[in-house]
Amino acid sequence: MQTDAGTTTIAAHLVRRFRELGVDEGFGIVGDFALRLFSALDEEGFPLLVATDEQGAAFAADAYARLRGFGVVATTYGVGGLKVANAAANAWAEQVPLLVVSGAAGVAERAGDPMLHHRIKDFDTQERVFADLTCAQAVLTGPHNAADEIDRVIRTMLQQQRPGYIEVPRDMVGVPIDAPDVDHIHPEVVVDEGALQDALDDVLAELRKARTAAIHAGLFTSRRDVEEALFGLATATGIPVATSSLGRGVFPERHHLGLGMYLGAVSTEAIVHRVEDVDVFLSIGVLQTDLTLGAFTAHIDPGHQITIADDEVTVHRRTYRRVPLSVFLPRLAEAVRTAGISFPHDPIALDPPFQPSDGPLTVEQAIEAIEWHIDERHGLLLDPGEPLFASVQLRMPAWALGSAYYATMGYAVPAALGAGKADPEHRPVVIVGDGSFAMTGMEIAACAFHGVPVILIVLDNEGYGTQRPMIDGPFNDIPRLAAEEMVRVIGQGRGFLVRTEVELDAALTEAMASNEVCIIRALLPKEKHSAGLSRLSEALKKRV
Amino acid sequence: MQTDAGTTTIAAHLVRRFRELGVDEGFGIVGDFALRLFSALDEEGFPLLVATDEQGAAFAADAYARLRGFGVVATTYGVGGLKVANAAANAWAEQVPLLVVSGAAGVAERAGDPMLHHRIKDFDTQERVFADLTCAQAVLTGPHNAADEIDRVIRTMLQQQRPGYIEVPRDMVGVPIDAPDVDHIHPEVVVDEGALQDALDDVLAELRKARTAAIHAGLFTSRRDVEEALFGLATATGIPVATSSLGRGVFPERHHLGLGMYLGAVSTEAIVHRVEDVDVFLSIGVLQTDLTLGAFTAHIDPGHQITIADDEVTVHRRTYRRVPLSVFLPRLAEAVRTAGISFPHDPIALDPPFQPSDGPLTVEQAIEAIEWHIDERHGLLLDPGEPLFASVQLRMPAWALGSAYYATMGYAVPAALGAGKADPEHRPVVIVGDGSFAMTGMEIAACAFHGVPVILIVLDNEGYGTQRPMIDGPFNDIPRLAAEEMVRVIGQGRGFLVRTEVELDAALTEAMASNEVCIIRALLPKEKHSAGLSRLSEALKKRV
Repeated sequence: MQTDAGTTTIAAHLVRRFRELGVDEGFGIVGDFALRLFSALDEEGFPLLVATDEQGAAFAADAYARLRGFGVVATTYGVGGLKVANAAANAWAEQVPLLVVSGAAGVAERAGDPMLHHRIKDFDTQERVFADLTCAQAVLTGPHNAADEIDRVIRTMLQQQRPGYIEVPRDMVGVPIDAPDVDHIHPEVVVDEGALQDALDDVLAELRKARTAAIHAGLFTSRRDVEEALFGLATATGIPVATSSLGRGVFPERHHLGLGMYLGAVSTEAIVHRVEDVDVFLSIGVLQTDLTLGAFTAHIDPGHQITIADDEVTVHRRTYRRVPLSVFLPRLAEAVRTAGISFPHDPIALDPPFQPSDGPLTVEQAIEAIEWHIDERHGLLLDPGEPLFASVQLRMPAWALGSAYYATMGYAVPAALGAGKADPEHRPVVIVGDGSFAMTGMEIAACAFHGVPVILIVLDNEGYGTQRPMIDGPFNDIPRLAAEEMVRVIGQGRGFLVRTEVELDAALTEAMASNEVCIIRALLPKEKHSAGLSRLSEALKKRV
Repeated sequence: MQTDAGTTTIAAHLVRRFRELGVDEGFGIVGDFALRLFSALDEEGFPLLVATDEQGAAFAADAYARLRGFGVVATTYGVGGLKVANAAANAWAEQVPLLVVSGAAGVAERAGDPMLHHRIKDFDTQERVFADLTCAQAVLTGPHNAADEIDRVIRTMLQQQRPGYIEVPRDMVGVPIDAPDVDHIHPEVVVDEGALQDALDDVLAELRKARTAAIHAGLFTSRRDVEEALFGLATATGIPVATSSLGRGVFPERHHLGLGMYLGAVSTEAIVHRVEDVDVFLSIGVLQTDLTLGAFTAHIDPGHQITIADDEVTVHRRTYRRVPLSVFLPRLAEAVRTAGISFPHDPIALDPPFQPSDGPLTVEQAIEAIEWHIDERHGLLLDPGEPLFASVQLRMPAWALGSAYYATMGYAVPAALGAGKADPEHRPVVIVGDGSFAMTGMEIAACAFHGVPVILIVLDNEGYGTQRPMIDGPFNDIPRLAAEEMVRVIGQGRGFLVRTEVELDAALTEAMASNEVCIIRALLPKEKHSAGLSRLSEALKKRV
């Protein structure tokens, strides 16, 4: 609430911007330097949902941002802020607009440089750390520019799709601050109309010449809100769509034009062939990294590639700058329709119904079983390692999230909290390894606490299975955890331990029918890996 | 092992230095950028013990360093390294020589600045972050100076008693490197003999004039290995010794000259009187901060204070520089003996035997019960909040560790792993709140895995009880965890849920008799705090 025509408060202004961005809640853990901030945000109607640990809160906010376009994690100073350094780095690497709001010592109490608790080298150490991990930072020390500083950070985040950092000294929380210079937070979209038209002509000419084409669609497609245009482009032309590991959900993978995830040589032959052996390879909004291209095993002929990036279009070696995806893709979808461009497509059939056997599970059968039980009411969260690589064939009707490039273990369970809040229409199904579960599995308590009925599947292969094929040693052995017993620790939900396909199938059936948090631990052979992971390990091994 | 007269390897040289420092093992979690490093260290006979999460490994290494003088945590790049940022900050703030060794992308594979996984802004982002959190950093990119760079970092850490950072590009692990310039790692102790003699005379003169005196002893006393001199000084003169919250264990608190912990006005009247109302207050090796001085409630007359710091002595306003604690304290102990200086002392009686009642528990009775069961075979680990503040009266026969200034929640459980390894003679007894347990309680699995039979006591007061007296709100409510059921998750140990003094007493009796990991959850009233915390909250509240 604005206190009068010309002033507001830090909390009121933050919440005003959050609402503009469609953000109804944040995540965070309080501390004495942040108490006033949390209390003021709460009074403005912006709850900060607790996780069991700050990093969990940050991963929850990150997933929220991936689905809603913006996310907020709030922490206290030092002991809170620095616990989210890794999550901020993840958001940087994977281009997520995750805002870190940190409480801090008051401006007045910093005088004389006292040894206050939670302090590190100096009072600005934390800000310096986040300068290396975020695209914009502000420490709100003055009433005259605080609102503008908030706007600068948020606008830069939206433009760059990167994390940001705002630090609020506790004695600034109640202070009236000047109203902001601008009304709306959304940054202006800068378009070079001439370049856009040339790019459009160029792309159309290439498509007209081609006999075969494929689309590889990535995260910016959803971040810039052009999923409909992508769908229009594909369905008008019959060009099949593979999704990138960071962009799953931008196109329904079970649609007849859906190919599933393309991850270089980690993908199956059928997908690789349909994606790589084409006259025109259209990369749309993809973040191109080693892991998202299967440890650089993607073989795309640059002479066949058209890249529609977040803010420019490149046809072979011709780059058209200031051509934003948000404007270009709808225009392209319209143009191909008018031009009547179309391609033949040889769909990849969906898997036949899952027929569980009574033998011991393998990771690939586990993924098959999960795929069979998942439908359009679910969202999927995948941790790095087997959950990500074994599920390379799994085709999702809705979104699937994961730390698929930065590859931080332990992302998926806390991310399920954020995803469940951002999109209550899709029940989170989480697949993690036993190593990841050990890191952040406790956050299943936060999911239950906030009413997010996660289905958590732990693929237990006795240790760091992704490392073993590269170099094995005692460092890959970890404590074995009976994840299914966590339901006793959190005092609710249902736990399952399964060893066979039949048992997994039954557990999934029960879990899907239940409204509670469900935890299924699937015992897998220690030494057998998925074909996807084996293909990746071979590629990575050369570098270890 | 040295490969020939003039060369060695990074792993061999690291392990050589670790052995010189009495460090037999490190803690850490592997990743593909660190596999060769972990493997090479393992081959050199230096195991890296796994925790459930990198931060846990770092806290374990931190506790190891507090007890052994040096600790090592090893991580992979980005996703591992940044997870220990908070632990490094804790080690900076509390002056712990914790070495962070991180794997990294190879020197060769950085060419062309590729988008390798775990990368953040640049390949040197992580190094820059640790430059803000450690006293010395090295990235070992060259074979000629790698050993000298390692030595520079370690020597700086030993001199400054702060954390350090070494990054090992994975293609450097197997490379022969030049042998170091110097044989031994221990830095030379620089003494100004004249200043030392003057300081000694000055202190002796003050002691001769005084009728009453007290010692406040802190962490540098153990870090510089002068606990015997402290004991000698106290017993020769009869000066009672209070310990600081970061220096518990430097003097046996149950000795008749032991006063227990002094924490400003948070301490009991009896201690405050004996520490503050004296002619000479001798502060020895204490890190002086807001929390260690009870939120600045310590009232010491500067005209009565003598400060023997890590490298200088100050008598009232006269400072004698280059007078290291390690040299000065033994000389002072000798001098007071020769001079025959002695003081009367009015000991604080030990508590009478604990008589459990059948009523509901309060936090203070819980601490009393724990104190009664602890003896010289135990070490104590205290998390910030009630565990630290309620135990202000608890007198420990041996060491007690905690993040008592930086105050990072969740330190104590993983620290117990490191403490148990560093000092197997003392069984770790851990006291945490329910909020801290939620953060890192999973590390009880790592303790069990590595055979450290921790006794974990969770003081469950339903949320962030330390915050409630300052500002309460929904952000202080957290998921309730049945910590005692964790024994089912880890597949070993004994769990207890207790509501009364009699039940707690019985559980402690069983736990002390057992060799297994034991988890006791004590249900406490939500709204009732210890007198210690209440005194602190009053002091802190003024600043919130």
